[in-house]
Amino acid sequence: MYRIGFGIDFHQLTEGRDLWIGGVKIPHHKGALGHSDADVLLHAICDAMLGALALGDIGMHFPNNDPAYKDIDSKILLARCFELIMERGYKIVNVDASICLEAPKIKPYSPQMRDVIAGILKVSVDDVSVKATTTETMGFVGREEGLVAYANVLLTKA
Amino acid sequence: MYRIGFGIDFHQLTEGRDLWIGGVKIPHHKGALGHSDADVLLHAICDAMLGALALGDIGMHFPNNDPAYKDIDSKILLARCFELIMERGYKIVNVDASICLEAPKIKPYSPQMRDVIAGILKVSVDDVSVKATTTETMGFVGREEGLVAYANVLLTKA
Amino acid sequence: MYRIGFGIDFHQLTEGRDLWIGGVKIPHHKGALGHSDADVLLHAICDAMLGALALGDIGMHFPNNDPAYKDIDSKILLARCFELIMERGYKIVNVDASICLEAPKIKPYSPQMRDVIAGILKVSVDDVSVKATTTETMGFVGREEGLVAYANVLLTKA
Repeated sequence: MYRIGFGIDFHQLTEGRDLWIGGVKIPHHKGALGHSDADVLLHAICDAMLGALALGDIGMHFPNNDPAYKDIDSKILLARCFELIMERGYKIVNVDASICLEAPKIKPYSPQMRDVIAGILKVSVDDVSVKATTTETMGFVGREEGLVAYANVLLTKA
Repeated sequence: MYRIGFGIDFHQLTEGRDLWIGGVKIPHHKGALGHSDADVLLHAICDAMLGALALGDIGMHFPNNDPAYKDIDSKILLARCFELIMERGYKIVNVDASICLEAPKIKPYSPQMRDVIAGILKVSVDDVSVKATTTETMGFVGREEGLVAYANVLLTKA
Repeated sequence: MYRIGFGIDFHQLTEGRDLWIGGVKIPHHKGALGHSDADVLLHAICDAMLGALALGDIGMHFPNNDPAYKDIDSKILLARCFELIMERGYKIVNVDASICLEAPKIKPYSPQMRDVIAGILKVSVDDVSVKATTTETMGFVGREEGLVAYANVLLTKA
Protein backbone atom coordinates (compact mmCIF):
# COMPACT_ATOMS: atom_id res chain seq x y z
CA MET A 1 0.00 0.00 0.00
CA TYR A 2 1.44 3.33 -1.13
CA ARG A 3 0.80 6.91 0.02
CA ILE A 4 1.77 10.18 -1.65
CA GLY A 5 3.01 13.29 0.14
CA PHE A 6 3.68 16.85 -0.98
CA GLY A 7 5.48 19.68 0.79
CA ILE A 8 6.33 23.29 0.01
CA ASP A 9 8.27 25.77 2.12
CA PHE A 10 9.38 29.40 1.82
CA HIS A 11 12.00 31.44 3.64
CA GLN A 12 13.35 34.92 3.25
CA LEU A 13 17.06 35.42 2.60
CA THR A 14 18.79 38.01 4.73
CA GLU A 15 22.26 39.15 5.77
CA GLY A 16 23.53 37.90 9.11
CA ARG A 17 22.03 34.42 8.99
CA ASP A 18 23.56 31.07 8.03
CA LEU A 19 22.28 29.33 4.90
CA TRP A 20 21.24 25.77 5.82
CA ILE A 21 19.80 23.72 2.98
CA GLY A 22 19.32 19.97 3.14
CA GLY A 23 21.19 19.78 6.42
CA VAL A 24 24.30 21.37 4.89
CA LYS A 25 25.69 24.81 5.74
CA ILE A 26 26.39 26.61 2.47
CA PRO A 27 28.82 29.53 2.31
CA HIS A 28 26.85 32.60 1.14
CA HIS A 29 26.51 36.27 2.08
CA LYS A 30 22.86 35.71 2.99
CA GLY A 31 21.08 33.08 5.03
CA ALA A 32 17.50 31.94 5.49
CA LEU A 33 15.36 33.72 8.07
CA GLY A 34 13.22 31.66 10.43
CA HIS A 35 12.54 30.54 13.97
CA SER A 36 14.51 27.30 13.49
CA ASP A 37 17.63 27.05 11.30
CA ALA A 38 15.17 27.77 8.44
CA ASP A 39 16.24 24.80 6.30
CA VAL A 40 13.72 25.13 3.48
CA LEU A 41 14.48 21.73 1.95
CA LEU A 42 14.20 19.70 5.14
CA HIS A 43 11.00 21.54 6.04
CA ALA A 44 9.43 20.69 2.67
CA ILE A 45 10.36 17.03 3.14
CA CYS A 46 8.96 17.07 6.70
CA ASP A 47 5.67 18.45 5.39
CA ALA A 48 5.54 15.86 2.60
CA MET A 49 5.99 13.03 5.12
CA LEU A 50 3.41 14.43 7.51
CA GLY A 51 1.02 15.08 4.62
CA ALA A 52 1.31 11.56 3.23
CA LEU A 53 -0.26 10.23 6.43
CA ALA A 54 -2.45 13.29 7.15
CA LEU A 55 -0.60 14.01 10.38
CA GLY A 56 -0.88 17.80 10.12
CA ASP A 57 1.91 20.10 9.04
CA ILE A 58 5.25 21.29 10.31
CA GLY A 59 3.70 24.42 11.81
CA MET A 60 1.38 22.28 13.94
CA HIS A 61 4.11 19.92 15.15
CA PHE A 62 6.85 22.51 15.67
CA PRO A 63 5.18 25.91 16.25
CA ASN A 64 7.35 28.84 15.27
CA ASN A 65 6.53 30.61 18.51
CA ASP A 66 7.68 27.72 20.71
CA PRO A 67 11.07 28.47 22.32
CA ALA A 68 11.88 24.73 22.14
CA TYR A 69 12.40 25.12 18.40
CA LYS A 70 14.34 28.40 18.41
CA ASP A 71 17.34 27.96 16.07
CA ILE A 72 16.83 24.20 16.18
CA ASP A 73 18.70 22.00 13.71
CA SER A 74 16.03 20.93 11.21
CA LYS A 75 17.65 17.49 10.97
CA ILE A 76 16.09 16.89 14.39
CA LEU A 77 12.68 17.86 13.01
CA LEU A 78 13.17 15.55 10.02
CA ALA A 79 14.09 12.68 12.32
CA ARG A 80 10.96 13.31 14.43
CA CYS A 81 8.74 13.29 11.33
CA PHE A 82 10.36 10.04 10.25
CA GLU A 83 9.62 8.52 13.68
CA LEU A 84 5.97 9.49 13.25
CA ILE A 85 5.65 7.59 9.98
CA MET A 86 7.65 4.61 11.27
CA GLU A 87 5.39 4.37 14.32
CA ARG A 88 2.48 4.00 11.89
CA GLY A 89 4.22 1.19 10.01
CA TYR A 90 5.39 3.13 6.97
CA LYS A 91 8.76 3.56 5.28
CA ILE A 92 10.06 5.83 2.54
CA VAL A 93 10.10 4.55 -1.04
CA ASN A 94 11.68 7.69 -2.49
CA VAL A 95 11.95 11.44 -2.03
CA ASP A 96 12.15 13.89 -4.93
CA ALA A 97 12.74 17.54 -4.09
CA SER A 98 13.43 20.76 -5.97
CA ILE A 99 14.96 23.92 -4.58
CA CYS A 100 14.22 27.22 -6.32
CA LEU A 101 16.83 29.87 -5.65
CA GLU A 102 18.83 32.30 -7.72
CA ALA A 103 22.18 31.98 -5.91
CA PRO A 104 24.40 30.36 -4.85
CA LYS A 105 24.74 27.25 -7.02
CA ILE A 106 23.52 24.22 -5.08
CA LYS A 107 24.94 21.51 -7.32
CA PRO A 108 28.25 21.09 -5.43
CA TYR A 109 26.35 20.46 -2.20
CA SER A 110 23.58 18.17 -3.40
CA PRO A 111 25.51 14.89 -2.87
CA GLN A 112 26.13 15.87 0.75
CA MET A 113 22.47 16.88 1.21
CA ARG A 114 21.34 13.52 -0.17
CA ASP A 115 23.69 11.69 2.22
CA VAL A 116 22.31 13.59 5.20
CA ILE A 117 18.67 13.04 4.25
CA ALA A 118 19.11 9.37 3.30
CA GLY A 119 20.86 8.73 6.61
CA ILE A 120 17.99 10.18 8.63
CA LEU A 121 15.26 8.50 6.57
CA LYS A 122 17.01 5.08 6.50
CA VAL A 123 17.05 4.78 2.72
CA SER A 124 19.75 4.56 0.09
CA VAL A 125 21.11 7.78 -1.34
CA ASP A 126 19.63 6.53 -4.64
CA ASP A 127 16.19 7.00 -3.09
CA VAL A 128 16.74 10.70 -2.35
CA SER A 129 16.76 13.28 -5.12
CA VAL A 130 17.71 16.94 -4.63
CA LYS A 131 17.31 19.10 -7.71
CA ALA A 132 17.77 22.85 -8.10
CA THR A 133 16.62 25.55 -10.46
CA THR A 134 16.62 29.32 -10.65
CA THR A 135 13.45 31.22 -11.49
CA GLU A 136 15.31 32.97 -14.33
CA THR A 137 15.59 36.17 -12.22
CA MET A 138 11.79 36.46 -11.91
CA GLY A 139 9.79 37.14 -8.74
CA PHE A 140 11.03 37.21 -5.15
CA VAL A 141 13.25 34.20 -5.73
CA GLY A 142 14.75 35.90 -8.79
CA ARG A 143 15.44 39.05 -6.78
CA GLU A 144 17.23 36.87 -4.18
CA GLU A 145 14.76 37.93 -1.48
CA GLY A 146 13.88 34.34 -0.69
CA LEU A 147 13.93 30.70 -1.65
CA VAL A 148 11.36 27.93 -2.05
CA ALA A 149 11.54 24.15 -1.82
CA TYR A 150 9.11 21.54 -3.09
CA ALA A 151 9.17 17.89 -2.08
CA ASN A 152 7.28 14.76 -3.00
CA VAL A 153 7.55 11.54 -1.05
CA LEU A 154 6.20 8.11 -1.77
CA LEU A 155 5.61 5.93 1.29
CA THR A 156 4.75 2.25 1.60
CA LYS A 157 3.87 -0.09 4.44
CA ALA A 158 7.12 -1.26 6.01
CA MET B 1 -2.44 -0.15 -10.41
CA TYR B 2 -1.77 3.36 -9.14
CA ARG B 3 -1.99 6.79 -10.79
CA ILE B 4 -0.57 10.11 -9.65
CA GLY B 5 -2.32 13.47 -9.98
CA PHE B 6 -1.20 17.06 -9.38
CA GLY B 7 -3.23 20.25 -9.19
CA ILE B 8 -2.49 23.93 -8.62
CA ASP B 9 -4.92 26.82 -8.41
CA PHE B 10 -4.73 30.59 -7.86
CA HIS B 11 -7.31 33.18 -6.84
CA GLN B 12 -7.17 36.86 -6.04
CA LEU B 13 -8.31 38.06 -2.63
CA THR B 14 -10.65 41.01 -2.62
CA GLU B 15 -13.08 42.87 -0.36
CA GLY B 16 -16.75 42.03 -0.74
CA ARG B 17 -16.39 38.30 -1.40
CA ASP B 18 -16.72 35.29 0.89
CA LEU B 19 -13.62 33.21 1.60
CA TRP B 20 -14.39 29.56 0.85
CA ILE B 21 -11.48 27.15 1.33
CA GLY B 22 -11.88 23.39 1.41
CA GLY B 23 -15.66 23.71 1.39
CA VAL B 24 -15.62 25.82 4.56
CA LYS B 25 -16.57 29.50 4.81
CA ILE B 26 -13.86 31.28 6.74
CA PRO B 27 -14.50 34.63 8.44
CA HIS B 28 -12.14 37.20 6.87
CA HIS B 29 -12.33 40.75 5.54
CA LYS B 30 -11.42 39.51 2.06
CA GLY B 31 -12.69 36.65 -0.07
CA ALA B 32 -11.49 34.83 -3.17
CA LEU B 33 -12.46 36.25 -6.54
CA GLY B 34 -13.73 33.89 -9.23
CA HIS B 35 -16.62 32.79 -11.39
CA SER B 36 -17.58 30.00 -8.97
CA ASP B 37 -17.22 30.30 -5.19
CA ALA B 38 -13.47 30.39 -5.96
CA ASP B 39 -12.52 27.62 -3.53
CA VAL B 40 -8.81 27.34 -4.32
CA LEU B 41 -8.30 24.12 -2.38
CA LEU B 42 -11.20 22.18 -3.89
CA HIS B 43 -10.18 23.38 -7.37
CA ALA B 44 -6.63 22.11 -6.89
CA ILE B 45 -7.96 18.73 -5.76
CA CYS B 46 -10.36 18.61 -8.74
CA ASP B 47 -7.47 19.26 -11.11
CA ALA B 48 -5.33 16.60 -9.42
CA MET B 49 -8.10 13.99 -9.85
CA LEU B 50 -8.74 14.95 -13.47
CA GLY B 51 -5.02 15.00 -14.18
CA ALA B 52 -4.40 11.56 -12.70
CA LEU B 53 -6.60 10.06 -15.42
CA ALA B 54 -5.77 12.64 -18.12
CA LEU B 55 -9.36 13.85 -18.26
CA GLY B 56 -8.52 17.48 -18.94
CA ASP B 57 -8.62 20.25 -16.39
CA ILE B 58 -11.16 22.15 -14.35
CA GLY B 59 -11.32 24.96 -16.90
CA MET B 60 -12.32 22.48 -19.61
CA HIS B 61 -15.00 20.76 -17.52
CA PHE B 62 -16.42 23.86 -15.85
CA PRO B 63 -15.67 26.87 -18.08
CA ASN B 64 -15.48 30.15 -16.19
CA ASN B 65 -17.67 31.85 -18.79
CA ASP B 66 -20.50 29.31 -18.44
CA PRO B 67 -23.44 30.81 -16.47
CA ALA B 68 -24.16 27.30 -15.13
CA TYR B 69 -21.12 27.62 -12.88
CA LYS B 70 -21.63 31.23 -11.72
CA ASP B 71 -21.09 31.32 -7.94
CA ILE B 72 -21.45 27.51 -7.84
CA ASP B 73 -20.48 25.66 -4.67
CA SER B 74 -17.17 23.96 -5.54
CA LYS B 75 -18.18 20.92 -3.51
CA ILE B 76 -20.48 20.15 -6.45
CA LEU B 77 -17.51 20.37 -8.82
CA LEU B 78 -15.46 18.09 -6.57
CA ALA B 79 -18.30 15.54 -6.48
CA ARG B 80 -18.52 15.61 -10.30
CA CYS B 81 -14.78 15.04 -10.65
CA PHE B 82 -15.04 12.14 -8.22
CA GLU B 83 -17.85 10.63 -10.32
CA LEU B 84 -15.60 10.84 -13.37
CA ILE B 85 -12.87 8.80 -11.73
CA MET B 86 -15.34 6.32 -10.20
CA GLU B 87 -16.92 5.74 -13.59
CA ARG B 88 -13.47 4.70 -14.82
CA GLY B 89 -13.05 2.25 -11.95
CA TYR B 90 -10.71 4.26 -9.75
CA LYS B 91 -10.83 5.30 -6.11
CA ILE B 92 -8.77 7.68 -3.97
CA VAL B 93 -5.84 6.30 -1.97
CA ASN B 94 -4.95 9.64 -0.37
CA VAL B 95 -4.96 13.38 -0.97
CA ASP B 96 -2.24 15.71 0.26
CA ALA B 97 -2.78 19.43 -0.22
CA SER B 98 -1.06 22.65 0.81
CA ILE B 99 -2.59 26.12 0.93
CA CYS B 100 -0.29 29.12 0.66
CA LEU B 101 -1.79 32.27 2.14
CA GLU B 102 -0.64 34.96 4.50
CA ALA B 103 -3.86 35.39 6.50
CA PRO B 104 -6.07 34.28 8.13
CA LYS B 105 -4.75 31.24 9.98
CA ILE B 106 -6.23 28.09 8.44
CA LYS B 107 -5.34 25.64 11.19
CA PRO B 108 -8.63 25.97 13.13
CA TYR B 109 -10.58 25.08 9.99
CA SER B 110 -8.50 22.23 8.58
CA PRO B 111 -10.33 19.43 10.49
CA GLN B 112 -13.63 20.65 9.06
CA MET B 113 -12.14 20.92 5.54
CA ARG B 114 -10.84 17.36 5.79
CA ASP B 115 -14.28 16.12 6.89
CA VAL B 116 -15.95 17.82 3.94
CA ILE B 117 -13.44 16.51 1.39
CA ALA B 118 -13.31 12.98 2.80
CA GLY B 119 -17.10 12.81 2.73
CA ILE B 120 -17.28 13.75 -0.93
CA LEU B 121 -14.40 11.48 -1.98
CA LYS B 122 -15.62 8.49 0.09
CA VAL B 123 -12.42 8.06 2.04
CA SER B 124 -11.47 8.26 5.69
CA VAL B 125 -10.48 11.64 7.06
CA ASP B 126 -7.07 10.00 7.64
CA ASP B 127 -6.68 9.86 3.87
CA VAL B 128 -7.11 13.61 3.38
CA SER B 129 -4.36 16.03 4.39
CA VAL B 130 -4.77 19.81 4.37
CA LYS B 131 -1.64 21.74 5.25
CA ALA B 132 -1.03 25.49 5.24
CA THR B 133 1.94 27.81 5.03
CA THR B 134 2.58 31.50 4.54
CA THR B 135 5.09 32.70 1.96
CA GLU B 136 6.87 34.68 4.69
CA THR B 137 5.33 37.94 3.37
CA MET B 138 6.93 37.50 -0.08
CA GLY B 139 5.22 37.86 -3.45
CA PHE B 140 1.53 38.31 -4.20
CA VAL B 141 0.57 35.78 -1.55
CA GLY B 142 2.74 37.62 0.98
CA ARG B 143 1.06 40.93 0.08
CA GLU B 144 -2.34 39.25 0.66
CA GLU B 145 -3.34 39.89 -2.95
CA GLY B 146 -4.08 36.23 -3.54
CA LEU B 147 -3.74 32.65 -2.45
CA VAL B 148 -2.51 29.41 -4.03
CA ALA B 149 -3.29 25.76 -3.40
CA TYR B 150 -1.36 22.65 -4.43
CA ALA B 151 -2.76 19.13 -4.31
CA ASN B 152 -1.45 15.66 -4.97
CA VAL B 153 -3.70 12.63 -5.21
CA LEU B 154 -2.87 8.97 -5.48
CA LEU B 155 -5.53 6.82 -7.16
CA THR B 156 -5.86 3.08 -7.49
CA LYS B 157 -8.21 0.71 -9.29
CA ALA B 158 -11.30 0.26 -7.11
CA MET C 1 7.71 -1.16 -7.29
CA TYR C 2 6.72 2.48 -7.88
CA ARG C 3 8.71 5.71 -7.78
CA ILE C 4 7.48 9.30 -7.65
CA GLY C 5 9.04 12.22 -9.51
CA PHE C 6 8.46 15.98 -9.40
CA GLY C 7 9.68 18.71 -11.74
CA ILE C 8 9.33 22.48 -11.96
CA ASP C 9 10.68 24.84 -14.60
CA PHE C 10 10.61 28.58 -15.27
CA HIS C 11 11.30 30.64 -18.38
CA GLN C 12 11.02 34.30 -19.23
CA LEU C 13 8.78 35.36 -22.11
CA THR C 14 10.28 37.78 -24.58
CA GLU C 15 9.74 39.20 -28.05
CA GLY C 16 11.73 37.62 -30.87
CA ARG C 17 11.63 34.03 -29.64
CA ASP C 18 9.40 31.10 -30.60
CA LEU C 19 7.03 29.72 -27.98
CA TRP C 20 7.58 25.96 -27.68
CA ILE C 21 5.45 24.19 -25.09
CA GLY C 22 5.08 20.43 -24.88
CA GLY C 23 6.95 19.99 -28.15
CA VAL C 24 4.46 22.19 -30.01
CA LYS C 25 5.19 25.61 -31.53
CA ILE C 26 2.44 27.97 -30.43
CA PRO C 27 1.71 31.18 -32.35
CA HIS C 28 2.26 34.11 -29.97
CA HIS C 29 3.96 37.50 -30.01
CA LYS C 30 6.38 36.35 -27.32
CA GLY C 31 8.47 33.22 -26.90
CA ALA C 32 10.34 31.55 -24.05
CA LEU C 33 13.92 32.62 -23.41
CA GLY C 34 16.56 29.97 -22.80
CA HIS C 35 19.68 28.22 -24.01
CA SER C 36 17.68 25.39 -25.61
CA ASP C 37 14.26 25.90 -27.22
CA ALA C 38 13.14 26.70 -23.65
CA ASP C 39 10.22 24.27 -23.61
CA VAL C 40 9.09 24.71 -20.02
CA LEU C 41 6.73 21.73 -20.03
CA LEU C 42 9.19 19.19 -21.46
CA HIS C 43 11.86 20.46 -19.06
CA ALA C 44 9.58 19.93 -16.06
CA ILE C 45 8.79 16.39 -17.24
CA CYS C 46 12.52 15.68 -17.77
CA ASP C 47 13.26 16.81 -14.24
CA ALA C 48 10.43 14.70 -12.83
CA MET C 49 11.78 11.58 -14.58
CA LEU C 50 15.37 12.24 -13.48
CA GLY C 51 14.18 13.02 -9.96
CA ALA C 52 12.17 9.82 -9.63
CA LEU C 53 15.39 7.82 -9.92
CA ALA C 54 17.66 10.42 -8.26
CA LEU C 55 19.67 10.87 -11.45
CA GLY C 56 20.34 14.58 -10.94
CA ASP C 57 18.52 17.36 -12.74
CA ILE C 58 18.23 18.78 -16.22
CA GLY C 59 20.88 21.40 -15.53
CA MET C 60 23.40 18.67 -14.65
CA HIS C 61 22.64 16.53 -17.71
CA PHE C 62 22.29 19.35 -20.24
CA PRO C 63 24.26 22.36 -18.96
CA ASN C 64 22.96 25.69 -20.24
CA ASN C 65 26.47 26.82 -21.08
CA ASP C 66 27.22 23.79 -23.28
CA PRO C 67 27.10 24.73 -27.00
CA ALA C 68 25.83 21.19 -27.75
CA TYR C 69 22.47 22.20 -26.31
CA LYS C 70 22.18 25.68 -27.88
CA ASP C 71 18.65 26.01 -29.31
CA ILE C 72 18.24 22.22 -29.06
CA ASP C 73 14.79 20.72 -29.53
CA SER C 74 13.73 19.69 -26.02
CA LYS C 75 12.05 16.58 -27.43
CA ILE C 76 15.61 15.26 -27.80
CA LEU C 77 16.26 15.97 -24.12
CA LEU C 78 13.02 14.24 -23.13
CA ALA C 79 13.98 11.20 -25.20
CA ARG C 80 17.41 11.07 -23.51
CA CYS C 81 15.83 11.23 -20.05
CA PHE C 82 13.47 8.44 -21.02
CA GLU C 83 16.45 6.33 -22.16
CA LEU C 84 18.03 6.86 -18.75
CA ILE C 85 15.03 5.47 -16.92
CA MET C 86 14.56 2.59 -19.40
CA GLU C 87 18.19 1.59 -18.96
CA ARG C 88 17.46 1.22 -15.25
CA GLY C 89 14.45 -1.00 -15.94
CA TYR C 90 11.67 1.53 -15.35
CA LYS C 91 8.71 2.66 -17.43
CA ILE C 92 6.19 5.47 -17.09
CA VAL C 93 2.86 4.78 -15.38
CA ASN C 94 1.48 8.28 -15.92
CA VAL C 95 2.49 11.92 -16.24
CA ASP C 96 0.43 14.80 -14.89
CA ALA C 97 1.57 18.32 -15.68
CA SER C 98 0.28 21.86 -15.22
CA ILE C 99 1.37 24.94 -17.13
CA CYS C 100 0.90 28.34 -15.50
CA LEU C 101 0.73 31.18 -18.01
CA GLU C 102 -1.51 34.15 -18.61
CA ALA C 103 -1.64 33.99 -22.43
CA PRO C 104 -2.12 32.52 -24.96
CA LYS C 105 -4.76 29.87 -24.28
CA ILE C 106 -3.12 26.43 -24.28
CA LYS C 107 -6.26 24.31 -24.51
CA PRO C 108 -6.32 24.04 -28.33
CA TYR C 109 -2.77 22.67 -28.31
CA SER C 110 -2.92 20.25 -25.38
CA PRO C 111 -4.06 17.21 -27.44
CA GLN C 112 -1.06 17.68 -29.75
CA MET C 113 1.29 18.12 -26.77
CA ARG C 114 -0.01 14.91 -25.22
CA ASP C 115 0.52 13.05 -28.51
CA VAL C 116 4.11 14.26 -28.74
CA ILE C 117 4.94 13.39 -25.12
CA ALA C 118 3.19 10.01 -25.18
CA GLY C 119 5.06 9.09 -28.36
CA ILE C 120 8.44 9.82 -26.82
CA LEU C 121 7.66 8.14 -23.49
CA LYS C 122 6.06 5.04 -25.11
CA VAL C 123 2.78 5.33 -23.27
CA SER C 124 -0.81 5.88 -24.30
CA VAL C 125 -2.04 9.43 -24.66
CA ASP C 126 -4.39 8.52 -21.78
CA ASP C 127 -1.33 8.31 -19.55
CA VAL C 128 -0.22 11.88 -20.26
CA SER C 129 -2.09 14.84 -18.81
CA VAL C 130 -1.39 18.46 -19.73
CA LYS C 131 -3.40 21.01 -17.79
CA ALA C 132 -3.20 24.81 -17.84
CA THR C 133 -4.13 27.67 -15.56
CA THR C 134 -3.54 31.39 -15.34
CA THR C 135 -2.35 32.97 -12.11
CA GLU C 136 -5.32 35.38 -12.26
CA THR C 137 -3.00 38.21 -13.44
CA MET C 138 -0.85 37.95 -10.27
CA GLY C 139 2.95 37.86 -10.10
CA PHE C 140 5.43 37.52 -12.97
CA VAL C 141 3.26 34.96 -14.71
CA GLY C 142 0.27 37.29 -14.43
CA ARG C 143 2.29 40.16 -15.90
CA GLU C 144 3.21 37.86 -18.82
CA GLU C 145 6.90 38.15 -17.97
CA GLY C 146 7.29 34.39 -17.76
CA LEU C 147 5.72 30.99 -17.44
CA VAL C 148 6.06 28.01 -15.11
CA ALA C 149 5.41 24.29 -15.53
CA TYR C 150 4.98 21.61 -12.88
CA ALA C 151 5.09 17.89 -13.59
CA ASN C 152 4.58 14.72 -11.60
CA VAL C 153 5.47 11.29 -12.92
CA LEU C 154 4.82 7.86 -11.51
CA LEU C 155 7.28 5.17 -12.61
CA THR C 156 7.23 1.43 -12.15
CA LYS C 157 9.61 -1.43 -12.89
CA ALA C 158 9.14 -2.39 -16.54
